[in-house]
Amino acid sequence: MPHLTILYTPDIEPLADMPGLCSKLAATMQTVRDEAGKAVFPTGGIRVLAYPAAHHAVADGSGPYGFCYFNLRMGRGRSAATHQAAGQALTDCASLHLAPLLAAQKVGLTFQVDEGPEVFDARFGNLHPLFAAP
Amino acid sequence: MPHLTILYTPDIEPLADMPGLCSKLAATMQTVRDEAGKAVFPTGGIRVLAYPAAHHAVADGSGPYGFCYFNLRMGRGRSAATHQAAGQALTDCASLHLAPLLAAQKVGLTFQVDEGPEVFDARFGNLHPLFAAP
Amino acid sequence: MPHLTILYTPDIEPLADMPGLCSKLAATMQTVRDEAGKAVFPTGGIRVLAYPAAHHAVADGSGPYGFCYFNLRMGRGRSAATHQAAGQALTDCASLHLAPLLAAQKVGLTFQVDEGPEVFDARFGNLHPLFAAP
Repeated sequence: MPHLTILYTPDIEPLADMPGLCSKLAATMQTVRDEAGKAVFPTGGIRVLAYPAAHHAVADGSGPYGFCYFNLRMGRGRSAATHQAAGQALTDCASLHLAPLLAAQKVGLTFQVDEGPEVFDARFGNLHPLFAAP
Repeated sequence: MPHLTILYTPDIEPLADMPGLCSKLAATMQTVRDEAGKAVFPTGGIRVLAYPAAHHAVADGSGPYGFCYFNLRMGRGRSAATHQAAGQALTDCASLHLAPLLAAQKVGLTFQVDEGPEVFDARFGNLHPLFAAP
Repeated sequence: MPHLTILYTPDIEPLADMPGLCSKLAATMQTVRDEAGKAVFPTGGIRVLAYPAAHHAVADGSGPYGFCYFNLRMGRGRSAATHQAAGQALTDCASLHLAPLLAAQKVGLTFQVDEGPEVFDARFGNLHPLFAAP
């Protein structure tokens, strides 16, 4: 955690610059702070993954409508202010990056932050130690 | 919202007509009504996205078993009767559409409706205004 | 249910043997028992689905970091001990299988078990009856 998953319609690919968007969102996640000024997301836990749909239908199907859904799943127990700060920073980042797309196409954009309902949680890779605080 | 995500094994692709299924499910979402006769899903918020798995294993792996999982995530606060009406209408739609597939292959089909656990929710595209009530 | 969804960065594909991992995880799911020694997961309900991301960013983007996220969604109402047993058995399976990958690359691995928030749940395929208890 935190995991940011992006589900989108492939028609937005040419103007969305998805690799650039993923990088900017990951960088933005590193900057989010809580009320005490502490980093909210451990660098070693940041993941952004983007998936174009193979098939889709949007709204009433009457036009060439695109769609991009952002879902950030974060650990439980953060304050409402932290949820809001994280969501707003990432939405602002995506909004700025996708301005050229929005100027050219009709696209639904939604950003949601979830606190996961996990009942078991294990990390067993070798990435976190690279970014552990000294 | 509402978002209907379909995860499936690619072996069902030839008989499932996924583009047609996505369109029919989106059209069905437009028809769902609550107890007061009001449309449950705003047209501008309807999205159906389908993803074939790159790799999979189903049941005990002993046969050529397929799988299709439907997950509808909708806004919170609807009644149990509305959940049931939405789920049943969409399951009926999928069941009818997939009858030729079921007649030919062994396929697990599951439809679930979730109320999301979101703690932040933003819409920042240009699609909703097209379908806003006058 | 149970559904195990795997989201991963495609750079791990050569060493991860994803088809083999899916099969082993499905086989492991068949072996999980609750406190009374009863199988936790009905064989006919087992599904493992793996999806490589089309685009991604991991950690601070400074290195060729990979990522593999396992999410098991299971039915509600199981004990904490059962959640722990299921999560641990599947994490152990994945850890053993991915040892060659971890020896060669920097990869974040996370396994989470969720109890789903479903408000509607329907099975309408023809797979479960094949595995029903006599």
